[in-house]
Amino acid sequence: MLARIVIDDIHPRTPSGRYPAKAVVGERVPVSATIFKDGHDRLAARVRWRRAGKRTWHSAPLRDVGNDRWEGELTPSAVGAHELVIEAWRDRFATWRHDIEIRVAAGDDVEVELEEGARILEALASQLPGRARKRVLDAAAGLRRTSCSLHVRLNAGLDDRVAELVGDLPDADLTASEPVGLWVDRERAGFSAWYEFFPRSEGGFVGAMDRLPAIAEMGFDVVYLPPIHPIGKTDRKGRNNTLTVEPGDPGSPWAIGSPEGGHTAIHPELGTIEDFRRFRDRASELGLEVALDYALQCSPDHPWVTEHPEWFHRRPDGSIRFAENPPKKYQDIYPINFWPERDADRVALWKACRDILRYWIGEGVRIFRVDNPHTKPIAFWAWLIERIHRNHPDVIFLSEAFTRPAVMAKLAEVGFTQSYTYFTWRTEPWELREYVEELAHGPLAEYMRPNFWPNTPDILSGPLRHGPPAAFLLRFVLAATLVPSYGIYSGYELYENEPASDENEEYLNSEKYEIRRRDWGRPDSMAPFIAQVNAIRRRHPAFRWLRNVRFHHSANDRFLVWSRGHAAEGDLMLVVVNLDPHHPQETVLGLDLAAIGMPTHGPYTAADELGGETYTWDGPNPYVRLDPTRGQVAHILTLQA
Amino acid sequence: MLARIVIDDIHPRTPSGRYPAKAVVGERVPVSATIFKDGHDRLAARVRWRRAGKRTWHSAPLRDVGNDRWEGELTPSAVGAHELVIEAWRDRFATWRHDIEIRVAAGDDVEVELEEGARILEALASQLPGRARKRVLDAAAGLRRTSCSLHVRLNAGLDDRVAELVGDLPDADLTASEPVGLWVDRERAGFSAWYEFFPRSEGGFVGAMDRLPAIAEMGFDVVYLPPIHPIGKTDRKGRNNTLTVEPGDPGSPWAIGSPEGGHTAIHPELGTIEDFRRFRDRASELGLEVALDYALQCSPDHPWVTEHPEWFHRRPDGSIRFAENPPKKYQDIYPINFWPERDADRVALWKACRDILRYWIGEGVRIFRVDNPHTKPIAFWAWLIERIHRNHPDVIFLSEAFTRPAVMAKLAEVGFTQSYTYFTWRTEPWELREYVEELAHGPLAEYMRPNFWPNTPDILSGPLRHGPPAAFLLRFVLAATLVPSYGIYSGYELYENEPASDENEEYLNSEKYEIRRRDWGRPDSMAPFIAQVNAIRRRHPAFRWLRNVRFHHSANDRFLVWSRGHAAEGDLMLVVVNLDPHHPQETVLGLDLAAIGMPTHGPYTAADELGGETYTWDGPNPYVRLDPTRGQVAHILTLQA
Repeated sequence: MLARIVIDDIHPRTPSGRYPAKAVVGERVPVSATIFKDGHDRLAARVRWRRAGKRTWHSAPLRDVGNDRWEGELTPSAVGAHELVIEAWRDRFATWRHDIEIRVAAGDDVEVELEEGARILEALASQLPGRARKRVLDAAAGLRRTSCSLHVRLNAGLDDRVAELVGDLPDADLTASEPVGLWVDRERAGFSAWYEFFPRSEGGFVGAMDRLPAIAEMGFDVVYLPPIHPIGKTDRKGRNNTLTVEPGDPGSPWAIGSPEGGHTAIHPELGTIEDFRRFRDRASELGLEVALDYALQCSPDHPWVTEHPEWFHRRPDGSIRFAENPPKKYQDIYPINFWPERDADRVALWKACRDILRYWIGEGVRIFRVDNPHTKPIAFWAWLIERIHRNHPDVIFLSEAFTRPAVMAKLAEVGFTQSYTYFTWRTEPWELREYVEELAHGPLAEYMRPNFWPNTPDILSGPLRHGPPAAFLLRFVLAATLVPSYGIYSGYELYENEPASDENEEYLNSEKYEIRRRDWGRPDSMAPFIAQVNAIRRRHPAFRWLRNVRFHHSANDRFLVWSRGHAAEGDLMLVVVNLDPHHPQETVLGLDLAAIGMPTHGPYTAADELGGETYTWDGPNPYVRLDPTRGQVAHILTLQA
Repeated sequence: MLARIVIDDIHPRTPSGRYPAKAVVGERVPVSATIFKDGHDRLAARVRWRRAGKRTWHSAPLRDVGNDRWEGELTPSAVGAHELVIEAWRDRFATWRHDIEIRVAAGDDVEVELEEGARILEALASQLPGRARKRVLDAAAGLRRTSCSLHVRLNAGLDDRVAELVGDLPDADLTASEPVGLWVDRERAGFSAWYEFFPRSEGGFVGAMDRLPAIAEMGFDVVYLPPIHPIGKTDRKGRNNTLTVEPGDPGSPWAIGSPEGGHTAIHPELGTIEDFRRFRDRASELGLEVALDYALQCSPDHPWVTEHPEWFHRRPDGSIRFAENPPKKYQDIYPINFWPERDADRVALWKACRDILRYWIGEGVRIFRVDNPHTKPIAFWAWLIERIHRNHPDVIFLSEAFTRPAVMAKLAEVGFTQSYTYFTWRTEPWELREYVEELAHGPLAEYMRPNFWPNTPDILSGPLRHGPPAAFLLRFVLAATLVPSYGIYSGYELYENEPASDENEEYLNSEKYEIRRRDWGRPDSMAPFIAQVNAIRRRHPAFRWLRNVRFHHSANDRFLVWSRGHAAEGDLMLVVVNLDPHHPQETVLGLDLAAIGMPTHGPYTAADELGGETYTWDGPNPYVRLDPTRGQVAHILTLQA
C-alpha cells in the first residue's frame, strides 16, 4: 500500500531502476524527488544514505524547489554499494506557524491554536538533547501563559531559535521511500587520464619500463596495455591486416591464446610474469596504474578451443566460424558462445571468465579496459561486474563499445565504470556541444561516465587524418578538458596521421599487426603540451566533475567555448578552442557570466594557464584570436572577479 | 538475472510503473519497447496481451523503427485489468537470409550455410500446421539438393512465401518481459459529453425528469448531479456564500448530512429513492447516464460526526475545525480525517467510504464525479478504486482536482478514469496549443484522460466573465473538439456571465446557495448549437481519440487551428476557431497537409459541418474569415482530397 506521503521519481537513478546509479567518493551527488501529501500541510524531507549492510546512516536535508520537486545533495565517503532513502514528514511546526500568523493578522481568536502550538513543541522537544529541549519546552510553556499578552505568548512560539532547533526534526506521518541503490567508485573512476601503448614495441615489459617515467611526466595516471597474452599462430594476421603472414610478423594481440596459454598467461615475447610485476611496480612508484585489456575471444590455438569445445559455436560441418563484424573479418579470432545450450556449460564458462579477472586482480590489477562488450550478453556483464565488485569494489571497468546508443547506455547501466563514446567522430563545434550536453546534463550523467579518446589503435578519424600538429593539439584539449576522463593511444604525441586508406579509419601500418619503433625524443613532440594540460587538469578541481560544464556563445562558429566550475566554488575555468587547425580565427565571445557566478559588469581577469598571459576583460564579450599555425589552438583560462 | 535479449522501457506505462496505464475498448493503443541483443543477429518481437486471469492471449507484431526501438499496437476488446508481455527472439531465418545473400555476392563458398539454412527451416516448420509445414520442409530439402545448381538451391530457401510462413514464428532465445499492467475501460471513459445541473432548481427529481429530453436532444451522454444527499442545517450558508442564512435558503449540497441521513440518503426536498430511480431510468431511456457526486465530507449534522467521532480531527478544546482552503472557508463542512491514529479506525472509515459507492452502484450508478480528491490521501484513492474496479470494472471516476501538476498526474496514475484540467484557465491560442500537446502527446496521454469544462458551478473565468454569446460558443467548440471528453454546467447555454465580483471567479447568486429558475425556452439559447456540435462529434470517429490532434499554423495569432484524425483513416476533421469573441478576424492558414495524409498539391474540399458551406481549397494556405458578431466563431470542416 502507498504510504501517507507520496515520494516519487527519486534521482539519482538508472532508466530501468534495477541497477544502482553511480557516484565517486567525495562527489557532490544531486538528489531529488517528487514529494507531496494531500491537503495543505507543510512538509519537510531529507535523504539518508549508508553503505550497504552498514549501520551508520548519513543524512542531508532536501529543499522544496517548486512544483512538488525537492532537491539536495549527498557526498559519499566510502567505496562500494550504498543505499539511499528519501524521508518526508508533515512539518507540524511550520504549518502551525504559517497558519497562526494568518489568523492573527485576520484578527481571529487563536486561543486553541496557541494550545495546539504548545503541544507540537512538546512533542518535538522529546527528540532534542538537554538544553535545546529545555528551550523548546520553555517556548511551549510561553504559548500557554494566559497571564501574558497575546503578543508575548506568540513571540515565545515564533522564536527563530526555537524554529531552528525543531526545524529539521522528523515529525508526523514520517514516510520513507523504498531504498534506492547507489554505487560509489574510487576517485580515479571519475577522473583519469589514460595512455595506451604496446609494450612489444618497446621491447617487452623490460623495455617498456623505460617509457614509464616519460608517461608519468606527461601527467597520465593510467597506462593501458593491449592484451599481453600469448598470440595464436593459426590464421595469424600479417601487416596491415593481411591474410599472408611473413616470418617475424607478431600478430594481433587480440588473437589470444596459444599452446603457451590463454587469458592468464603472458606472451613469452613480452617477458615473464615477474617482468610484468616489475613493470606494474615501477608504474605504481611513478603514480601510474596499469590497466589490462579484457578481451573475451580466442585464437584458434587457445587452450579453451580444445578443452571446452562446448564454449564455441559449431557449424553443421563441425568447424568454428571466425569472428566477423561485416564487412570486417577476424580470421585469427574465434568468438565465444556465451550462452551454450546446457546451462551448466554457461555457468562454467562465465565462472572461467570471472576467474581470469580474479587472477589479474591477484596480480594487483584494478583497471580493465573491456574489449567489445556489446558482442557479449548484457546479462553476462551484469553478473560479472556485480560478482567482482562484491569483493573488489575498487575495480574499474572501461567499456569499449562503439555501437548504438541504447546498447552503450545499457552496458553503463548494468555496471561498467566508464565508457568509450562517440567523441572520436564528433568534430564540429555544434555537435560536440550537443553531445557533451547530453552526456553531462541528460539522464546518462547519473550512470554513464564518458572517457574521450581522440584516437585508438583502430581509429584515426576526422581532422587527425593527414592532419597538421594543430589538429592533434586541439583534439587533445577537447578530450582532456570537456570531460573528466580521457585517453590517447601512443604515437598521438608524434602526430601520427596516416590512415590505412581514404575509406578505412584504421592506421596505415597499424601497430596491431607490427612492431613500431618511435623516436620519442623528437624535438617537436607534443609531450610538453600534454604535460602542461594534465598539470592544469590536476591543479583545478573544476576539471574533476562531469556536470559542471556550460557552453557559451561565440560569434565565430569555428570556436567552441565552455566553462567548468562556478565562481562560488572558488574554481572557475574557461576553455576557448579554435576548431580550425589550418587558419587563424578570431571571435567575440558571448559569456553567460551570471550563470557561472561572475559579476555581469566591471573588469575581471582571465589568466591563460596554457599561454601564460593574463587578460583583463570587462563584460560578457571579450575578443579572442587563436592562430593554430603558431601552435595556438586554445586558451585554458582561470576567471577571477 | 537478465535474460538473453534486453527488453526495456516498455510503453504504455505510468511514471512509477506501479499502476496500469489506461486504454478503452476498441482503442488502438501504441505499444513500444527498446529491444536488442549482443551481436549482429536479426531480432523479431511481438506484444501479447490478455485479460488478467484469463487464458487466451492475443498477439500483434512489433516492428523495428530504428535505434533499437520497436513499435506496434494492440486493440483491447474487453473491459478490466489486462496484462501485456513483450516477447522477442533471434530471427534465425532472417539472419541467415541476410548473411547468405552477402556471402553469395562476395563469392564465398556457402555449402555449410546452405545446410544451416535447412536446419533452421526444419526447426521452424515444427510450429506450423500441415500444408505450411510441408512447404517449409520442401524448402529445407531444396537447400540440400546437391544435384541442383547453387541458384536453384538458394531459390528454395529464399522463397518469399516460405519467408512469410516462418516470418513471425517465435524462434531462438525467446525472451519475455515481465508482465505490464493495462487497465481497459468501457468506451464512455474515453469519449463523453457531460451536462451538470442542480435537480433542485427543476423542482427535485420529478421536475428534473422533464429536463432530460432537452439534455438528450443537445447530444449529451452523461448528466451529472451535485450531491443529492440531505443538507446540514448547522452553519448552513446563505445566498452568495454568506454566513447569515435566511428561512428558505436551501444550503450548499456539498454540506452533506443531516438527521435524515448521510451519503446514502436522498435529500427529502429532492424526492425519495423511488423518485431517483425513476429519474435514472428515464435518463437511461434517453441514452443518458447519471453521474453522482462523491464528496467525502460532512456537515456538522452528518450522522458520522456523532457515530464516529474518531473519523474527525479534534482540536485541543474538543471541537472540530471546519474545512478551509485559505482564504476560502467552508464553515458548513467538516473535513474527514482519513488517517486516524488507530489503524482499525482507518480501515473502518475507508470501508465505510467504499460502501457508499457500493450502495449507489447497487442503485445502478456507474459514474462518479469525485469532489476534491487531492485533499484526501492518494493511498486511499489507490485502494478504493482498485477495490471497486475488482467487481465493477465499468465504473468511471472523474477527478475534480484543480491543483499542482504532480498531484493531478498522481491521482490519474493511481486510478482515476478522467480528470478535470487547467482548460478553464487556458484562454490564449498559444497556451491552449501547448497544453493540449502536453495532454495528447506527452507521457500523460498514457494514463490521464482530460475532461474539459468551460465552466463549473464554482468557476466562471476568462472570456466568459461578462462575455458576449460568442465567447460561450467558442469556448464550447474548444472544449468539445480539442479532446474527446468535456462537460458544461447548466446555464452555460443561456450565456450566464455575471461573476461574484472582479476578484472572485465564482458566479454571482451562485446556484450552490440558492434555487435558480431558468427560462430554458429562450429563443437565443445555445441549445441548437450544442446539439449541432455534439452531432458532429458523434458522427466523426476522429473526435473519439485523444492522440490524433495536430495543430496547424495561422498567420493571425487570434486563431487556433487543429486537425483530428488522418486521411488514411477515412476521417479527417479540421477545426478553425477565432478566439476573439468581439471582432471579426481573418487569416491565412498554414496546414501541414503531408502530416495528415492529404495531397500537398491540387484542390480538395473542406465541408463546414457547422456553417453548411463546402469550400474548394488548393494547397496549404486557405483564407478564413470568422465574424463572432454574426455568431460565426468556428469552422468544423471535413477535409477530403
